[in-house]
Amino acid sequence: MKNIGRTARLLALTAAALVASNAVAAPSPTAVELAQQGKDLGWWIVEDITTEIGPRQAATEAEAAARVWAVRRLKEMGFQNVREEKFTMPTWVRGDEQASLVGPFHPQKLAIAALGNSASTGPKGIEGEIAYFASFDALQAAPDTMVKGKIVFVDHQMAPTQDGSGYGYYGRGRFTGPNVAAKKGAMAIVIRSIGTDNHRNPHTGVTNFDAGVKPIPAAALSNPDADQLVRQWERAQAMRQAGGREEPLRMKLLLTPRDLGQQTSGNVIAEVPGSDPAASPVIIACHLDSWDLGTGAIDDAAGCGIIAAAAKYVMMADQPRRTIRILWAGAEEVGVFGGKAYFDAHGKEKHAVALESDFGADRVWRIDFRLPDSAKPIADRVADAVTPFGVVRGRQPANGGADIGALVAAGVPAIDLAQDGTRYFDLHHTPDDTLDKIDPVQLRQNVAVWTATLAILANSSDAELP
Amino acid sequence: MKNIGRTARLLALTAAALVASNAVAAPSPTAVELAQQGKDLGWWIVEDITTEIGPRQAATEAEAAARVWAVRRLKEMGFQNVREEKFTMPTWVRGDEQASLVGPFHPQKLAIAALGNSASTGPKGIEGEIAYFASFDALQAAPDTMVKGKIVFVDHQMAPTQDGSGYGYYGRGRFTGPNVAAKKGAMAIVIRSIGTDNHRNPHTGVTNFDAGVKPIPAAALSNPDADQLVRQWERAQAMRQAGGREEPLRMKLLLTPRDLGQQTSGNVIAEVPGSDPAASPVIIACHLDSWDLGTGAIDDAAGCGIIAAAAKYVMMADQPRRTIRILWAGAEEVGVFGGKAYFDAHGKEKHAVALESDFGADRVWRIDFRLPDSAKPIADRVADAVTPFGVVRGRQPANGGADIGALVAAGVPAIDLAQDGTRYFDLHHTPDDTLDKIDPVQLRQNVAVWTATLAILANSSDAELP
Repeated sequence: MKNIGRTARLLALTAAALVASNAVAAPSPTAVELAQQGKDLGWWIVEDITTEIGPRQAATEAEAAARVWAVRRLKEMGFQNVREEKFTMPTWVRGDEQASLVGPFHPQKLAIAALGNSASTGPKGIEGEIAYFASFDALQAAPDTMVKGKIVFVDHQMAPTQDGSGYGYYGRGRFTGPNVAAKKGAMAIVIRSIGTDNHRNPHTGVTNFDAGVKPIPAAALSNPDADQLVRQWERAQAMRQAGGREEPLRMKLLLTPRDLGQQTSGNVIAEVPGSDPAASPVIIACHLDSWDLGTGAIDDAAGCGIIAAAAKYVMMADQPRRTIRILWAGAEEVGVFGGKAYFDAHGKEKHAVALESDFGADRVWRIDFRLPDSAKPIADRVADAVTPFGVVRGRQPANGGADIGALVAAGVPAIDLAQDGTRYFDLHHTPDDTLDKIDPVQLRQNVAVWTATLAILANSSDAELP
Repeated sequence: MKNIGRTARLLALTAAALVASNAVAAPSPTAVELAQQGKDLGWWIVEDITTEIGPRQAATEAEAAARVWAVRRLKEMGFQNVREEKFTMPTWVRGDEQASLVGPFHPQKLAIAALGNSASTGPKGIEGEIAYFASFDALQAAPDTMVKGKIVFVDHQMAPTQDGSGYGYYGRGRFTGPNVAAKKGAMAIVIRSIGTDNHRNPHTGVTNFDAGVKPIPAAALSNPDADQLVRQWERAQAMRQAGGREEPLRMKLLLTPRDLGQQTSGNVIAEVPGSDPAASPVIIACHLDSWDLGTGAIDDAAGCGIIAAAAKYVMMADQPRRTIRILWAGAEEVGVFGGKAYFDAHGKEKHAVALESDFGADRVWRIDFRLPDSAKPIADRVADAVTPFGVVRGRQPANGGADIGALVAAGVPAIDLAQDGTRYFDLHHTPDDTLDKIDPVQLRQNVAVWTATLAILANSSDAELP
């Protein structure tokens, strides 16, 4: 720890920051100062990036500003070998977006957000009849005649789960619903948000069309707006059954996103150098990019705060035997381009074990392992170390995470510190993903569990963790 | 109750509706049918108007559609003397709205909504330095030099209360903050929403400028966006104190609302005729208009549902001695124009007692009276009748409500059925004021308390209630 006075240090930091970049930044406190203020370093990192940068969509100027911020802050925290590793990627950005139900009832606006890779409706928008499907499965089973020329609506309210396991199931409506609708000849598709809240904040997220399939306009309605559509749909059906006019439910839709072609994104990497240069490193990951609607506090500033704080605390205690490599990945949200770029550059290096934090800021409740059999003793040690924090040991192998996915697929051992995700999909990819949603007490537990785990892993022998 | 088959009745209703208006409407179930479906009539009224009409700002075409809907539905429910009573009023409508923090940090968009009667920034918007005030009192105390030419920001987080009593205190930032800022020479004013939630949905509402004061652009930020502004403000201050650049916090603001001049609004009135034509009526009120951002479910479709359901249930039991007059007032939100119009037309008629429901859809927890001393026995009877529903008796005189305010001020007795408003200001005047926020169980208790109260009042003798 530096031992100069606070004001002098702040002045020095500020001056250095001004020299380093045209961007400005508020003075950066030390971990000890933060602790004295009752704040956790992990919390401060989240506050810092969400306040000074805000939303940081992949391969945009905002994500580039986040990398400048990241390099400065990681250096200020005392990490070594801090660097950007850039790459290019196809880039889609949001335009104007408006939707209304325009008949048979009084016209009403709906809260909507385009999905990543949505086509544009053109500046004049489109109008069409709604084709209702209760679920992705119902859409997939439908004959083309029910879809052709219509605006498909996929209902299906996501249910919350502690481990987030519903995302794969309900998420199909977003991941591939637009592709299925496009193949059947739909004019456009609007889905109920893949989310568990009832606020008028739509959940965006990426969708993908198969090669050769022409993209169609694709967007998500907030849950209350989807409810409204369903009520109007049911009333239109009741009118039909009562012998009233055959007036189908109709929607106007305007989406003007644009494809910007290949743009630059990048990973930011930092290290705590280990005392044994021959020992393979522990890699810990999160992602620096966020969706554009919120400030990406839980997705995934929190993950970056958690892993960097844990690495800092381990470093403050003593130099670890193994190098700890911090990967703040770029461009996760839109296709894990950062994780792939990391693997392309570093996949052949040996990694002792990989961990990722990308599921919000709530407490860790379970630990899962994917380690070689010979590593059972260290798994037991880690599991024992996190027991006092209320963390239980799972019976399934660890999954890893998006940004370390290629490493894990290639055989790198992994540990999951599973976070409570019961309320994660209330906020995920919405304007509501902001700092105020994070409970500092839960986040502190999370950082503590990470610190305990990382301290053991980074100081493990080669016999314990080959 | 009509005793014809459901299908035949639905056909007849639908045909009648088609003749009555170009607008369409789904078939209307009876109170008995709703009860058989496990739905309350009060709930159904709220579902009906929010689904078929949605937002219904005063003196707009949407409010006119709501009056057409109201007349049809009140007739279908069996009420008599159903009529519109129109009036004209000055009308303001929202335009485009965008706000960003543009320095000294990375530019970020903010969720914002113009306040009613806000001036326009013009289509190019404005940019200015933020002048921070912790409260309305701080703004009022500030010298003009701190305000002149700046974009004023008024902080001050509203705290929730069960009886909503904080609205007057915190609400000053909206009611008169813009007027004070305009008089001191501000370029514009942005306030922290008068609301108790933490979602990115700003709370709109009306503001008023004194005669002779030129209106300025005035808007509300959602609470998370206000938090963000405050964090950037604090960081800008810290940079200044650390000797960094003197870069003030700056905002870009675009608001393009328009004044439409005098437009038509109206009240909708319906009655349950009493058996004694000489007896003075009981008047029960709510307001039909809503703000434009949400569908006005809690503000105030719920009130209209509660009072009409209670009147219907009293009517179904037997014809009451006194006439029950239902006032679904127009244009409450923007200056109680409907309440004033009712008073101008009917203020000289004798009213036995007035009650209003305009504080959401939660349970009734307290009853307050403002009755002549001679009416103490009936007050005791009513208080006893609502005790089984968990309603306590208050010690303060009843206030009445906005739309019956002129009547009460002129001496008409009043009773308040005070609703639990602890979470009311989470939703008030936001896009989030939608049907899904209403708990049908709480709403049912509310209707039951109103029914018990109204049955006693409408059947009271002239000796009990003069």
